[in-house]
Amino acid sequence: METRNNPNPSSGDDAEIVSRRIQRLSLHLNPIPCPLPDADRQIGMAACARAKLEVDTGKLSGYMRGPHRDVQEKVFEYFESRPELQTPLEISKNDHRELCWRQLVGLVREAGIKPFRYVADDPAKYFAILEAVGSVDMSLGIKMGVQYSLWGGSVINLGTQKHKDKYFDGIDNLYYPGCFAMTELHHGSNVQALQTAATFDPITDEFIINTPNDGAIKWWIGNAAVHGKFATVFARLMLPTHDSKAVSDMGVHAFIVPIRHLETHETLPGIEIHDCGQKVGLNGVDNGALRFNSVRIPRDNLLNRFGDVSRDGKYSSSLPTVNKRFAATLGELVGGRVGLAYSSVAVLKLAGTIAIRYSLLRQQFGPPRKPEVSILDYQSHQHKLMPMLASTYAFHFATSYLVEKYAEMKRTHDEQLVGDVHALSAGLKAYVTSYTARSLNVCRESCGGHGYAAVNRFGTLRNDHDIFQTFEGDNTVLLQQVAGDLLKRYQEKFQGGPLTVTWNYLRESMNSYLSQPNPVTARWESEDHLRDPKFQLDAFRYRTSRLLQSVAVRLRKHTKTLGGFGAWNRCLNHLLTLAESHIETVILAKFIEAVQNCPDPSARSALKLVCDLYALNRIWNDIGTYRNVDYVAPNKAKAIHKLAEYLSFQVRNIARELVDAFDLPDNVTKAPIAMQSEAYSQYTNYVGF
Amino acid sequence: METRNNPNPSSGDDAEIVSRRIQRLSLHLNPIPCPLPDADRQIGMAACARAKLEVDTGKLSGYMRGPHRDVQEKVFEYFESRPELQTPLEISKNDHRELCWRQLVGLVREAGIKPFRYVADDPAKYFAILEAVGSVDMSLGIKMGVQYSLWGGSVINLGTQKHKDKYFDGIDNLYYPGCFAMTELHHGSNVQALQTAATFDPITDEFIINTPNDGAIKWWIGNAAVHGKFATVFARLMLPTHDSKAVSDMGVHAFIVPIRHLETHETLPGIEIHDCGQKVGLNGVDNGALRFNSVRIPRDNLLNRFGDVSRDGKYSSSLPTVNKRFAATLGELVGGRVGLAYSSVAVLKLAGTIAIRYSLLRQQFGPPRKPEVSILDYQSHQHKLMPMLASTYAFHFATSYLVEKYAEMKRTHDEQLVGDVHALSAGLKAYVTSYTARSLNVCRESCGGHGYAAVNRFGTLRNDHDIFQTFEGDNTVLLQQVAGDLLKRYQEKFQGGPLTVTWNYLRESMNSYLSQPNPVTARWESEDHLRDPKFQLDAFRYRTSRLLQSVAVRLRKHTKTLGGFGAWNRCLNHLLTLAESHIETVILAKFIEAVQNCPDPSARSALKLVCDLYALNRIWNDIGTYRNVDYVAPNKAKAIHKLAEYLSFQVRNIARELVDAFDLPDNVTKAPIAMQSEAYSQYTNYVGF
Repeated sequence: METRNNPNPSSGDDAEIVSRRIQRLSLHLNPIPCPLPDADRQIGMAACARAKLEVDTGKLSGYMRGPHRDVQEKVFEYFESRPELQTPLEISKNDHRELCWRQLVGLVREAGIKPFRYVADDPAKYFAILEAVGSVDMSLGIKMGVQYSLWGGSVINLGTQKHKDKYFDGIDNLYYPGCFAMTELHHGSNVQALQTAATFDPITDEFIINTPNDGAIKWWIGNAAVHGKFATVFARLMLPTHDSKAVSDMGVHAFIVPIRHLETHETLPGIEIHDCGQKVGLNGVDNGALRFNSVRIPRDNLLNRFGDVSRDGKYSSSLPTVNKRFAATLGELVGGRVGLAYSSVAVLKLAGTIAIRYSLLRQQFGPPRKPEVSILDYQSHQHKLMPMLASTYAFHFATSYLVEKYAEMKRTHDEQLVGDVHALSAGLKAYVTSYTARSLNVCRESCGGHGYAAVNRFGTLRNDHDIFQTFEGDNTVLLQQVAGDLLKRYQEKFQGGPLTVTWNYLRESMNSYLSQPNPVTARWESEDHLRDPKFQLDAFRYRTSRLLQSVAVRLRKHTKTLGGFGAWNRCLNHLLTLAESHIETVILAKFIEAVQNCPDPSARSALKLVCDLYALNRIWNDIGTYRNVDYVAPNKAKAIHKLAEYLSFQVRNIARELVDAFDLPDNVTKAPIAMQSEAYSQYTNYVGF
Repeated sequence: METRNNPNPSSGDDAEIVSRRIQRLSLHLNPIPCPLPDADRQIGMAACARAKLEVDTGKLSGYMRGPHRDVQEKVFEYFESRPELQTPLEISKNDHRELCWRQLVGLVREAGIKPFRYVADDPAKYFAILEAVGSVDMSLGIKMGVQYSLWGGSVINLGTQKHKDKYFDGIDNLYYPGCFAMTELHHGSNVQALQTAATFDPITDEFIINTPNDGAIKWWIGNAAVHGKFATVFARLMLPTHDSKAVSDMGVHAFIVPIRHLETHETLPGIEIHDCGQKVGLNGVDNGALRFNSVRIPRDNLLNRFGDVSRDGKYSSSLPTVNKRFAATLGELVGGRVGLAYSSVAVLKLAGTIAIRYSLLRQQFGPPRKPEVSILDYQSHQHKLMPMLASTYAFHFATSYLVEKYAEMKRTHDEQLVGDVHALSAGLKAYVTSYTARSLNVCRESCGGHGYAAVNRFGTLRNDHDIFQTFEGDNTVLLQQVAGDLLKRYQEKFQGGPLTVTWNYLRESMNSYLSQPNPVTARWESEDHLRDPKFQLDAFRYRTSRLLQSVAVRLRKHTKTLGGFGAWNRCLNHLLTLAESHIETVILAKFIEAVQNCPDPSARSALKLVCDLYALNRIWNDIGTYRNVDYVAPNKAKAIHKLAEYLSFQVRNIARELVDAFDLPDNVTKAPIAMQSEAYSQYTNYVGF
């Protein structure tokens, strides 16, 4: 959702000047002015609908489509062919869990789609499957992610060959359903403070897994309440020291713990499992709570890629410190964030498609004695949905880029890329999932009462997607990682150190951005200037650079009196704004690239329009910042606002084509109000007429 | 949710000056500086918690409490004594509907609470019951509203004595459950375009109710799918003209139509009812779709307060035009909006209480080698929740005022009051329900994973509350009514006409607000000045006045070329901002009054702090507007931001007392994570440990 900023606080005369300018500009965009009869002019801008860009949906769609559309279509076809595997609107938690399991088993064993193989070797294909599966039922997407990316991913990424040999097939074919037991009741974000202990017993050559107190109960563990047979348990590795009574805390490590009997499925001795119960959404996933009462596992069950224990209880690692080992361990898990950012865009596309198709269909009110107009012809409705549509396109290109870089990182293990992907996945996951969560509310609200029918999807999409903001890293915590990373780069810049790809604009341009704004360009307000990618990117980069420089100064100052933690907290809102500003900058840069690389001229024009709306809408949202330092003069601010409003109207004119290009067939969107023909009839049929 | 604005884009030096100022200001607020050991200073501002205002929760709570707490406690006690009437977390739609009916029957027939009596005679008491009942299960609140405020309210407000005589008791004691059948499949907001017809048959002295096409099917009708026996049906009154073949359309009127047999409960002939099915929330309410196939009802069933038909088919009315009759009819229904605005604040209090209590309990991260800190000690968390808490207080006083005025209007029928209550109820309903809807997302997100457990309430609260933004008037449409009303007053001002109470600031001060901002006061930035209610109110009023004046000019200009409808649409975002700005202004004015009227000094100080946060946070959110016209100079903008951030911190220090003053006992909040003692244990117990 975009914040509605104050429209045109100008006096009438100013408004008139700007308006004339917009009119000229409009002629410029549409060289052949639309010859409207007087009656049509009644409905205002909406009447100009005919003077719109021509968009070849097929070409635009082709440019957007990823390389793995075939496997996605296989997923859709499989579930289309198995109506008994479709999730009904109303289903009890227990039935949903069983159905979700049958869906996953069907996908893997019947449709023959085996996602585990792609987790490490072809992540782009894995994420494409995840996207398709999530659109069938998001619970299924998450269930699949728990099994393959979290449980399976922890085994192959944190373990060594012996673990792959032993577990790969069982995970792949679902005979070894498993859990990822990291979060505890008292600790989610602060993973380093986990309290579950894994104490080595040199006599029996085993680890003893123990839950020392209720706060250390593993909580929210997916697959634990019903289906899981194993769990990767994150616990503090405790090694006996020479002083026989004492133990040494080696920090958090991961261990494979069998939790249910492979044949009988009975919970194993020493393990207590409870059902975390009904959730806001994703009730097809069986989250459980686990308490360990001195459960013994063989030494081999330590996932020992980054740290190992020998038969005689000696610790060894290729990494020098607890912190480095911890970072390496968590670093292997960024794939989850990439998947969430990518899936969140898919949810946004789906919701936006439903909301926009319905808003084109729905008519309400109109000029006197004229037919009612589509609600998308209202400026207020364009304001709600068009910047959102532009953001969806922006996020599409940014997350596609992220997936590409992640795949490259998995292939090359290039160290700079690791850092870049880590920060970018944290930032995009946080930024995109927060945006989608807000947008889902706007979509429901913009469809009025019919948006409240469960069959029209917004409730489930919102309830299922909601937790994307929290799991795989709380968004507020992730943005702080981005800010921390920026500050590190900032220091490196001044020390001449290396900067990774996504960050290097900081070096290129920091100095120019930190000089005083140019009072001449601050007044430029022509359309050509405002739609120039250089102006847009400069404005975004200026904001980020300024935020970065000023927060660095503030942190330095406050650290003297408040210490590092206190200073960070004193500047926290500032740091979060910096992180968001940086992510917005990266997103814009990728969008501009995508526009430039688009081979088809008509698709490129459409994308350029959408990209300009994304850029100017964001600048307007932060207009206070820009005005406060006179980066833009008052008249330029007004021109930006006017143009953003006008671009919303222009984008509305190709809104149908833009959502069609998302390539979501009716059997994926499902909502009757969004059907591409006879939507109202399909809706009345659904209700029983 | 508050938009996070750019924190301090200032250079280090500016920041230092402001910071020193804040330090001085902080000393001023806390005359005895808190003597902190160095260790405590590590955690920054949070450590100052001891230097906080002392708040007497009992006195604050007493001041906030309405006059009808007794009946609310009776509601709570009744449901406490009937555990079988409590809604479980997981319940099927059909079971929920039956339970909801049993809850309502129990309330009325067993607990002896009879809300219908208060609908007309003591609305404040009715709304108090609604609030309490809604906190038991919002479906019950809405079911009660459908029965008494919509179905019952339409009979007593749109009908005459004969209708009261015939229906009052049956409605009151629930033997006549009924519906309010206004919305159609194709028309929700545009009520004047409803298509259902009620044609008078002079031969049989009956009306024939008919659904002319599928778009005219009555849709979303509460109580229709299962329990309703009657419906107030809104239909176009069609009277035969002298030319015997033709009929004359007299506009939309309301008719009582029996839909099910009083004894057998069978659907009556000519009526087709379907279940609208699963909704996003409120599944305890049975919404249905109704089609009428030439259903005959006696002439007496016309609710004839504002228009009547004689035996020989002549129309009569005390009101001269179709539009006036329509306005009078809808005007009687504003009670629903008052109830929604009021109930929405109750939801916000509940969600805020849960989120804030948990955020005080939850600890995560902290300074090195120190205990972890409460997440509410993080500036980012304060930013999420403290302006929201301040808004909750602001809305409490504003909606209490609205209820008071509504009751006065029902008592006096004063015409000016009618206009004022109409616009204020539209504006507050729209503004408050949109704010609450956004805040529910923030509350869930701020409680992380545990906020996603259904038992902790956010899912149900959000899903049930969501539609508050749409029913009883779509928020975007309602805000346009407010804007339209403001424009009318604006014209009256220049014609010397009367202005109603809430609006009269426009006359008092429009001229001064429309002159150029004073360049001297634009620079004032002392704490005394920024916390002066006069500065705050002036800033709000300035913004509203300027928006009003500028949109009036734009509308005049565009009307010439685009016509009235086109011009309105061209200025729509501007008009919506104007409406919101006005409502914010009214809310602030009422809050300032409430602070001044508070008899207890400690409660008053707390309220003053909260009110200042509300005011400065809103000004900061619109800082672009204020800066753009130099109403505030850059340094003043920075000072406002700094002070708002600091006030958030100060409010955090009394956050526990502020939510305690909402007076919501544990059996009302229910969420284990918000229990006032042993929250974590109650949560683990719930899960089965």
